[in-house]
Amino acid sequence: MPTRDQPTSRPATAASDTYSFLGPAGTFTEAALAQVPEAAGKPWRSVNNVGEALDDVVSGRSVAAMIAIENSVEGGVSATQDALANVPNLRIIGEYLVPVNFVFVARRGTTLADVKVVNAHPVAYAQCHLWLDAVLPSHGHIPATSNVTAAASLFESGLADAAIAPPNITKHHDLVVLAEDIGDNPSAVTRFVLVSRTVPTPAATGADKTSLIAELPDDRAGALLEMLEQFATRGVNMSLLESRPIGDALGRYRFVIDLDGHILDERVADALLGLKRFSPNVTFLGSYPRADRIRVEVTGRYGDDAFVDARDWLRGLIAGESD
Amino acid sequence: MPTRDQPTSRPATAASDTYSFLGPAGTFTEAALAQVPEAAGKPWRSVNNVGEALDDVVSGRSVAAMIAIENSVEGGVSATQDALANVPNLRIIGEYLVPVNFVFVARRGTTLADVKVVNAHPVAYAQCHLWLDAVLPSHGHIPATSNVTAAASLFESGLADAAIAPPNITKHHDLVVLAEDIGDNPSAVTRFVLVSRTVPTPAATGADKTSLIAELPDDRAGALLEMLEQFATRGVNMSLLESRPIGDALGRYRFVIDLDGHILDERVADALLGLKRFSPNVTFLGSYPRADRIRVEVTGRYGDDAFVDARDWLRGLIAGESD
Amino acid sequence: MPTRDQPTSRPATAASDTYSFLGPAGTFTEAALAQVPEAAGKPWRSVNNVGEALDDVVSGRSVAAMIAIENSVEGGVSATQDALANVPNLRIIGEYLVPVNFVFVARRGTTLADVKVVNAHPVAYAQCHLWLDAVLPSHGHIPATSNVTAAASLFESGLADAAIAPPNITKHHDLVVLAEDIGDNPSAVTRFVLVSRTVPTPAATGADKTSLIAELPDDRAGALLEMLEQFATRGVNMSLLESRPIGDALGRYRFVIDLDGHILDERVADALLGLKRFSPNVTFLGSYPRADRIRVEVTGRYGDDAFVDARDWLRGLIAGESD
Amino acid sequence: MPTRDQPTSRPATAASDTYSFLGPAGTFTEAALAQVPEAAGKPWRSVNNVGEALDDVVSGRSVAAMIAIENSVEGGVSATQDALANVPNLRIIGEYLVPVNFVFVARRGTTLADVKVVNAHPVAYAQCHLWLDAVLPSHGHIPATSNVTAAASLFESGLADAAIAPPNITKHHDLVVLAEDIGDNPSAVTRFVLVSRTVPTPAATGADKTSLIAELPDDRAGALLEMLEQFATRGVNMSLLESRPIGDALGRYRFVIDLDGHILDERVADALLGLKRFSPNVTFLGSYPRADRIRVEVTGRYGDDAFVDARDWLRGLIAGESD
Repeated sequence: MPTRDQPTSRPATAASDTYSFLGPAGTFTEAALAQVPEAAGKPWRSVNNVGEALDDVVSGRSVAAMIAIENSVEGGVSATQDALANVPNLRIIGEYLVPVNFVFVARRGTTLADVKVVNAHPVAYAQCHLWLDAVLPSHGHIPATSNVTAAASLFESGLADAAIAPPNITKHHDLVVLAEDIGDNPSAVTRFVLVSRTVPTPAATGADKTSLIAELPDDRAGALLEMLEQFATRGVNMSLLESRPIGDALGRYRFVIDLDGHILDERVADALLGLKRFSPNVTFLGSYPRADRIRVEVTGRYGDDAFVDARDWLRGLIAGESD
Repeated sequence: MPTRDQPTSRPATAASDTYSFLGPAGTFTEAALAQVPEAAGKPWRSVNNVGEALDDVVSGRSVAAMIAIENSVEGGVSATQDALANVPNLRIIGEYLVPVNFVFVARRGTTLADVKVVNAHPVAYAQCHLWLDAVLPSHGHIPATSNVTAAASLFESGLADAAIAPPNITKHHDLVVLAEDIGDNPSAVTRFVLVSRTVPTPAATGADKTSLIAELPDDRAGALLEMLEQFATRGVNMSLLESRPIGDALGRYRFVIDLDGHILDERVADALLGLKRFSPNVTFLGSYPRADRIRVEVTGRYGDDAFVDARDWLRGLIAGESD
Repeated sequence: MPTRDQPTSRPATAASDTYSFLGPAGTFTEAALAQVPEAAGKPWRSVNNVGEALDDVVSGRSVAAMIAIENSVEGGVSATQDALANVPNLRIIGEYLVPVNFVFVARRGTTLADVKVVNAHPVAYAQCHLWLDAVLPSHGHIPATSNVTAAASLFESGLADAAIAPPNITKHHDLVVLAEDIGDNPSAVTRFVLVSRTVPTPAATGADKTSLIAELPDDRAGALLEMLEQFATRGVNMSLLESRPIGDALGRYRFVIDLDGHILDERVADALLGLKRFSPNVTFLGSYPRADRIRVEVTGRYGDDAFVDARDWLRGLIAGESD
Repeated sequence: MPTRDQPTSRPATAASDTYSFLGPAGTFTEAALAQVPEAAGKPWRSVNNVGEALDDVVSGRSVAAMIAIENSVEGGVSATQDALANVPNLRIIGEYLVPVNFVFVARRGTTLADVKVVNAHPVAYAQCHLWLDAVLPSHGHIPATSNVTAAASLFESGLADAAIAPPNITKHHDLVVLAEDIGDNPSAVTRFVLVSRTVPTPAATGADKTSLIAELPDDRAGALLEMLEQFATRGVNMSLLESRPIGDALGRYRFVIDLDGHILDERVADALLGLKRFSPNVTFLGSYPRADRIRVEVTGRYGDDAFVDARDWLRGLIAGESD
């Protein structure tokens, strides 16, 4: 079990080995960070939101921060995507999936029949709506600022009888689990990314993702199409494409894009060159191993060899050799 | 001011004239509903989340429901988009923008200097972070289930001294405003849509949007491109494009799309035909006037006349007339 | 064997049953016309070039004319394509392939060893270059105005000892064949089309072609691409695409296009509509059975049913039915 | 005036300084060659057809050959294009335009009223059809193997009274011009290219063309489109696109392509790389100054600097620098 601290006066110039995460102990974000081998045995710093986590990385207080990026119960896509677009020089260095399971916990001695008031973060509360309606149709709800404080509150006030919390809450608090898997969607998963400013881009593994943010040169019909052709003409598949308002004017969007492949894959590098020329503003967010470890299949036409062969051919043409 | 009720036993077959919204009175969603002329003087039904709001529409309890769809402080894009994808036969019949301003309120007689504990919904609390840090650096926070209950709580318990609330809270509660415009982003706006199952598609105004959800036939590189070409070849511009996980398998996405134009515009209708043939699953979410009332500019090549002329030409060719 | 005449004073208003072809009797064009069942037993009119053949059709002197359109030894692509672009209201109603075989003929009693001078059309002469070099390295060449007049000249003057001619020349002249298949390319084929102004478009057979000529709206990079997307987005394959100078200014091109499919195929009709809207000038040259009778394979996505289903779906949406 | 010879025994290994052209002296092809400064004062070799001209280049008998490539009266597009596709290692090193004007010539003492029989190459004869019909409605025609031999024949036999010839025929033969500009299309132009195997690619001038021949990987709908996207995504315009049958099977085509720009222009080089990867068979035919000297306009997005900047950016990303 890694140690946890809250360093406050570490100088930014020193190489920090601290990892930031949305705390407190017991959150899904902490569960994601627990998947990172490099973070084992290093100091972990609990923060309150995505902005604080990225501040830690930018200031050098932390070497990296774990943040939720998709389908999150603890923060959400938009805030993270917008932060990545606006804070320069960040790099995603890893991707992690955490199943979103909830447990229903209470102080020792409490049974389901005793529960009248439930403490829960509003988002988690909404995600357990069906189970609560069926089992506790007439309960009351006290909102909490996070899934973990919901559980912690059981010891602090007598207002609530039970709480909705992440499964590993029992490692941190002496609570009894009254019910497991109470979320409405049993296959729910949150996707997290580990973000750094100093860790080098992970080596290509053959099962990689590359994340980007790009603006369109104008908003006429077909501009997005032309941008996406930069990927299609190199055989590069997208696994994510989302428009996000730029914020400077209504109707102006940037696109958050995940590509299959690594910046050191020839076809991805070439697509990045094409995108850079086309788009007035491209942010490279990093290349990193996919959480699902599924290898990217590429036809020979778009394999590294095809790029090397084509360059050799072109070089020969320019040198005056035969075609 | 419209009346509000909580109808529970209205038969689904009767034509309801009730409008559902995320309550209670005073929310931004209510402010959006207040922009709807047809809802004036009709019963308004306050609900707790998007799912309840759509349930009201599907069951016939309400004629329509106002729900946040983008950049919301009260629900968020993903939940709404997924609900619209999964609940059949819904139609968006209007779009409304509400500026996201927050006020800092207290019971009469309280001054800023008196405030030690703040009641606030966690999302609103995060959005006023800068102001709170500057003005009340050492305050405590009690979370609320909504922006309105934060304010209402001031009368119910003595725990909090002030609350973060929407500007129109003072219409519903006898509170004093200690500070206005305390949100970190003064230009923040939430986009709402009014959803129905029975109201006919609004007439084309020349300043319309059409919302869709579509799946790709396969996930090879270029499939999205081919889908978007269905729009580009008809000169149809997109104002929104977001990928959302379908949920049946990791990596399978559907796309939420907003087009400029109305289903009764020739180019939009033709693009819908192309999309329907291409995609294994298309959901039409409706055509409705844009909230910003900005007219869609179309070059002659893609105007209605061009479509009518082309059909006349083709009909003549098939009939054997000259070209 | 059909009869042949040279009608000169037939009034244009009367319905002619004459077929024009590049003559005289014995040409490859006549061989193509011999493949047309409807022309059997009707008067055939021999003309001197493509212009005359189309004049016959336009004036009503002939019901149809057979003209070479690709890889011809008797006229050539460009002249035909330009004529079809400039003469209005013509329709291609059939396509025919004729193998380009040449025979080496002489008057009775002549042997190969006797041949010193060869009469041949310059194009045919060039196509038999290899055989002549090998067999008659030191012969002389007298040019002829056509492949048939080359053979006919053997009776008219004593200048030439042998001639290069089409295989069926011996049906028309009492000549002996000294060598067969003397062309350099044994698989050479000329493609002919039968052109009319009055014959209705042939019915769809499932193995059809549609021919078009279209101009681009402007000459920026990508305009051609946008035009071709009108076909690709409907799953319509092209079997021919050629740029031809429009002639009004250097660098302005029109495109001659053959599509797989018939104007009554839904996907082709829809692509024609898209093309008509996109291009400032489209000429429909006809839909007709392919000479090779190879059926056009279409995936379900682009089949007629997909078009009908999509229209039904759209009609339902507009009528307010469920999606 | 350059000298002309007919070298036959020059060893292929020696560096020839001879230029081949479709002769004899006086042809339009010779007029094109007269536009080449480097050919002045060098031996010119008259040949009979495109095949012989390219043989001279391949064998080393000539340093270069002038051949007609578009809209020719002396050879034609298809033969040249097919030869360029099939003979390896040829390079186009220059492009030349020659106006196609014809003069009507006769022996001294002959007047128009005396002319009964006209000697003319069949193609030239067809191109002067309107003038001949108007001025000499009842003349006879004797075909010639070339425009120049038509004129030369006036001295060799007494059969013809006049001939159709290129304007500069009077530099080579003592003939009188009875009429000028007798071609049906006064603005007709033939485009010629100078082809070599040893002359280096001409330097980029800003007003260049690049010629290619490429095959498609398969013939499904959209394969051509994907190929053309390789150009469009780099902002490379096409000035020529023609499909030509490959010849190995009916319906298999290769594409003859002229691009605006030079292989040393970044966007063209990058497009060639993309094309090479996409196409199973690409032939580079050369980059050379445009005959019309019109500069290629390129938006900044596709200028050389954009390519250099993008590469610098990518190199920085890979090296771990900021974006």
